Amino acid sequence: MRVALLSTGSEILQGLYPDTNAQWLAARLDALGFDVVAIRSASDDLEPTLAALGSLSAEADLILTTGGLGPTEDDRLREACAAHWRRPLVHSAELERQIAALFRRRKRPMPSSNRRQALIPRGAEPLPNRWGTAPGFAIPRRRKLPALIALPGPPVEMRPMFERRALPWLRRHLWPGVVRGRTVIHTIGWPEARVNETLADLFDADPQLSVTLLARSGKIDVRLTATAENREAVRSTLTHWRRVVRRRLPRELVWGRDDETLEEIVNRLLVKAGWTIAVAESCTGGLIAQRLTAVPGASRMLRRSVVTYADEAKRRVLGVSDATLRRHGAVSQECVIEMAEGVRRWAGAEIGLAVSGIAGPTGGTPEKPVGLVWIAASTEHETVAERHVIIRRERDAVRLWASDRALDLARRMIKDHSAKSGA
Amino acid sequence: MRVALLSTGSEILQGLYPDTNAQWLAARLDALGFDVVAIRSASDDLEPTLAALGSLSAEADLILTTGGLGPTEDDRLREACAAHWRRPLVHSAELERQIAALFRRRKRPMPSSNRRQALIPRGAEPLPNRWGTAPGFAIPRRRKLPALIALPGPPVEMRPMFERRALPWLRRHLWPGVVRGRTVIHTIGWPEARVNETLADLFDADPQLSVTLLARSGKIDVRLTATAENREAVRSTLTHWRRVVRRRLPRELVWGRDDETLEEIVNRLLVKAGWTIAVAESCTGGLIAQRLTAVPGASRMLRRSVVTYADEAKRRVLGVSDATLRRHGAVSQECVIEMAEGVRRWAGAEIGLAVSGIAGPTGGTPEKPVGLVWIAASTEHETVAERHVIIRRERDAVRLWASDRALDLARRMIKDHSAKSGA
Repeated sequence: MRVALLSTGSEILQGLYPDTNAQWLAARLDALGFDVVAIRSASDDLEPTLAALGSLSAEADLILTTGGLGPTEDDRLREACAAHWRRPLVHSAELERQIAALFRRRKRPMPSSNRRQALIPRGAEPLPNRWGTAPGFAIPRRRKLPALIALPGPPVEMRPMFERRALPWLRRHLWPGVVRGRTVIHTIGWPEARVNETLADLFDADPQLSVTLLARSGKIDVRLTATAENREAVRSTLTHWRRVVRRRLPRELVWGRDDETLEEIVNRLLVKAGWTIAVAESCTGGLIAQRLTAVPGASRMLRRSVVTYADEAKRRVLGVSDATLRRHGAVSQECVIEMAEGVRRWAGAEIGLAVSGIAGPTGGTPEKPVGLVWIAASTEHETVAERHVIIRRERDAVRLWASDRALDLARRMIKDHSAKSGA
Repeated sequence: MRVALLSTGSEILQGLYPDTNAQWLAARLDALGFDVVAIRSASDDLEPTLAALGSLSAEADLILTTGGLGPTEDDRLREACAAHWRRPLVHSAELERQIAALFRRRKRPMPSSNRRQALIPRGAEPLPNRWGTAPGFAIPRRRKLPALIALPGPPVEMRPMFERRALPWLRRHLWPGVVRGRTVIHTIGWPEARVNETLADLFDADPQLSVTLLARSGKIDVRLTATAENREAVRSTLTHWRRVVRRRLPRELVWGRDDETLEEIVNRLLVKAGWTIAVAESCTGGLIAQRLTAVPGASRMLRRSVVTYADEAKRRVLGVSDATLRRHGAVSQECVIEMAEGVRRWAGAEIGLAVSGIAGPTGGTPEKPVGLVWIAASTEHETVAERHVIIRRERDAVRLWASDRALDLARRMIKDHSAKSGA
């Protein structure tokens, strides 16, 4: 079942945003077993929209559009679909009632222009919008023309419209004959080439399975995709091969699966161990704290976090010694160890995490290049420090890598502790 | 001059990434006066690539592709271009020498597969790649076929290849007859509708000018685009209308222009005033510190930053009183004022900035809903607190809005001080 996505509007064509609607829809459709064969943006004028619908019709069984359904004259998607599917636009009394009801609920008068939003191509099925004023519609596949689903552009409307309106319609009209399932095994610690080598023979091991690697900020994801006739076959294929992959990789390399994030895992391990964490950041400048607290409920676990760029703050807040700073500098094993121990004691947390590095673009030397990052984690029983040299030298990239490595060190330390204490 | 962008590869179609290459190219081309009429992704197999090239050829004067130039058999862009432009692939000795030289510089042996990267369609101009192994190429427009520029996919190669190879080629072969220029006036504080109303009559004031508004996280950008025959006319149109817009808007509403970010502006004002800043964050969890330190050199200005989710940390580190926490709670005017004053004194900074709010998804009450954020800034002379209720209720959105509002409050306070002290 081949799907083409079409986003209309000028903002993506001017480079103001990346097309995140398309990304979200592609991921959802792909996971459901559809093949997304084209993603395209076009101006919301009538001619370019018609040209885009024309070329995509030759390549897809379904065109899914986002945007172009607003109340103004600039929003021409309804006209373009009517012309391309050769059906006149008709007024839907049902849709107009729903639009009017939305304005009543929001206690605002309904401008007359919003009546245009109740127009749909004849024979199309209206897809009512509870989340905004722009309803969508769907046209079944007929003769040489593909099916169409038109959804509004704002993500807060588009996403529920896809889940609650488009999917039920697709289940009735156009569902893939095969079932697809996916699982992702998240690793950190090995370069991509080594993961690749270790799993190479699995890439063609099972005709129902596809194995791909994806590197993000130094973390390697192993993506297993199974395609089969039914859910049961997909599930057993994934379960089998996930086990095989896990057996091939060292335990500590694997930090999570599927949609899990490293910060979620660290939070979960903290909750399980009954631990709180304290963070002292230098070059990451608050990124580790921000990631940890992006997880709802994280406030209970993050006892304190402090950004100590200045040597003064390292000394006064964390108790890093003058001698260390003088002899070894702030980006050193000695300093980061004192930072991790210092922040743990200062905050009264069970684990202290510290980062000190050179994010660039300037400040590097031959001995301490941009990308050099020292990380340490400290518990009551031990303090561990690690040195990383991050090859990508853009400031943001160095900061992201460093925060990943620090969260991963925390993960391993908490896990080790839990294993030893039998928690 | 109509341009179509084509990204090949399966990762965007599977929704693994948004197409950030296309976004970057669209913004650059648009600013140079090209009209980006289509952005499209297609699988990197031969047939879909040919179908995409075919449909885009009817819509554009130039097709600019990214990706598909790797050394493996999966990388079929060279073949697709050769077929579509009806030229056989030929081996470029010059390109092979350059690829070999790159491997020598990196002190690695050159795999024989990389020889494929020296193939280009006959008559195409090679675009050597100093930043990676995949060279690009360009084909001039001829008869009914558009021009082509093929660039490698990795952004660290694609971007310099565009600037240093594609642009010079375009200047020789295919440059827009008009010049486009743009300036952006960044505002914060008014809702979009009010900015719109204040500037409405400018939208059609000058045929050489286009005025658009763009709302991002509660900040409204006023984008002025001028199109004229030469640079001088563009510059004078922009200068004139920028002045008109600035006169219409209250001074304190406008925080910056063009590519400036709010965090850069705050850093610059701090440097100018000779001030350091200290930050105490609760619901934003480190985001303000992270944004401030994303600016290179920010370490000198950010004296200390602390995340104090826990009441214990608010009391012990910042000196917030028990009575305040008991009587008003952590999300209150009283608490955020004590946090801002406390962090300023604790860090010995000239300005203290504090945020306390409810980022959600849970934790809201009728009196203190999710999205309620208190912000305060404190100097030696005064402490100002502001209450915001952020309507978008996703956790990330609340955090981003809150960090914008806090940085803006700091901006206004430092500016006020500098104005009063005549700095």
